Amino acid sequence: MTTDTCPKEIAVQFELGGKMVTIGGVAKGSGMVHPNMATILGFVTTDAQITSNALQMALKKGNENSFNMISLDGDMSTNDMVLAMANGQADNPEIGHDSPCFKKFSDVLEEILIFLAKEVARDGEGATKLLEIVIEKAHSVEDAKKAAKTICSSLLVKTALFGCDANWGRILCALGYSGISFDPQKINLYMGDIQILKKGTPLPFDEELASTILSQNEVTILVDLQCGNAAATSWGCDLSYDYVKINGEYRT
Amino acid sequence: MTTDTCPKEIAVQFELGGKMVTIGGVAKGSGMVHPNMATILGFVTTDAQITSNALQMALKKGNENSFNMISLDGDMSTNDMVLAMANGQADNPEIGHDSPCFKKFSDVLEEILIFLAKEVARDGEGATKLLEIVIEKAHSVEDAKKAAKTICSSLLVKTALFGCDANWGRILCALGYSGISFDPQKINLYMGDIQILKKGTPLPFDEELASTILSQNEVTILVDLQCGNAAATSWGCDLSYDYVKINGEYRT
Repeated sequence: MTTDTCPKEIAVQFELGGKMVTIGGVAKGSGMVHPNMATILGFVTTDAQITSNALQMALKKGNENSFNMISLDGDMSTNDMVLAMANGQADNPEIGHDSPCFKKFSDVLEEILIFLAKEVARDGEGATKLLEIVIEKAHSVEDAKKAAKTICSSLLVKTALFGCDANWGRILCALGYSGISFDPQKINLYMGDIQILKKGTPLPFDEELASTILSQNEVTILVDLQCGNAAATSWGCDLSYDYVKINGEYRT
Repeated sequence: MTTDTCPKEIAVQFELGGKMVTIGGVAKGSGMVHPNMATILGFVTTDAQITSNALQMALKKGNENSFNMISLDGDMSTNDMVLAMANGQADNPEIGHDSPCFKKFSDVLEEILIFLAKEVARDGEGATKLLEIVIEKAHSVEDAKKAAKTICSSLLVKTALFGCDANWGRILCALGYSGISFDPQKINLYMGDIQILKKGTPLPFDEELASTILSQNEVTILVDLQCGNAAATSWGCDLSYDYVKINGEYRT
């Protein structure tokens, strides 16, 4: 049984070493995606000529910033896989991990993986919207990732998002229990274009406008910690009545 | 604002050192109760004569097995407190931590705290039933507690419970990702009186009977790991439409 409601696929063509190269990707996944992938299958194919080692490096790096940065319901499973295959038919000069073209190939692959990861999060069981949490100016990338994923996983954040409620208190609360180091007096927090907190102090904001922003099918929350130079982004979804229905009444 | 729907209180009288002694307790809490208490207030009063040190010891031990063993929605907060106060008016011989009466006092106090903790779990936001997870024959108490709390916190277990579905796969899955050591081939698993797994093998069981057991307002799941001598119990509740309503639409 799958609870995916739609296909997740993408293909990108670009020039590499004087040849046109294509990378395509498909993925499936809709629940039990935590803490690093789990219950996702992802397949990437390309006609680029690339060494197996370089392809593996690019895939691993891209995966860290994409499938490993989504969390749907916090449940985990042991079953996941992302594969990349290259058949070399584009006839470009072979890419090694130290080739000048490696970065470009790697960047496009990461974009593709992020696109697919977002599609998985958007199609999370019962989801009505995609949640993007951006953490900026953290002490370390590890801190930024931890904070982003903790906020994304909070049931209170997810239900507030479902209810289109600009409840920044729940975001700060999850940030607090994520265990990262930060100074609450320095935080700037934005929901979409609206700044909600400035140096830890709530700004007056138009709640109706905030509610409109939160009712879009894609909501970005930016937390600027002002305590370092690291950043990370994670994706998740809201927690709706349908999540309960799908997982509580799936046999009726 | 509180989301408690009912008072949680208890008083017990018993004989101690030839005198009648009373211990009473009240608690409030309904959400954000994780991982150790959080968002609970608990107050215990007694007329026993007991040293401050002995009372603190009894409270700490009791708390470990009660309020620290419940999890509602996995969200945490920084605000919690359990206080115990004794005024000595029962006129019993003063209890020190090495008095013969200490164990009896301590046991009754723990029963009271467990009663209150279960009342909090039963009244979890949107809950339709109390979930009790008993882990037996684990390698260590730490393992047993971790396993019990992980199963209690799984959204998939909580939604299956809401749907009265005997989904033992979700229980095993949570047991697996709890990180404790166990042998899947040794597990006996019971839902109420029905044995579902014997030495890791599913037994044929009457799904209708299982569904009837799971539709009670109190459901006990026993996982016998057969790999040691330690045990622990945790409590939680199901995840219902009302949880989403309470936390997603509380302002409308």
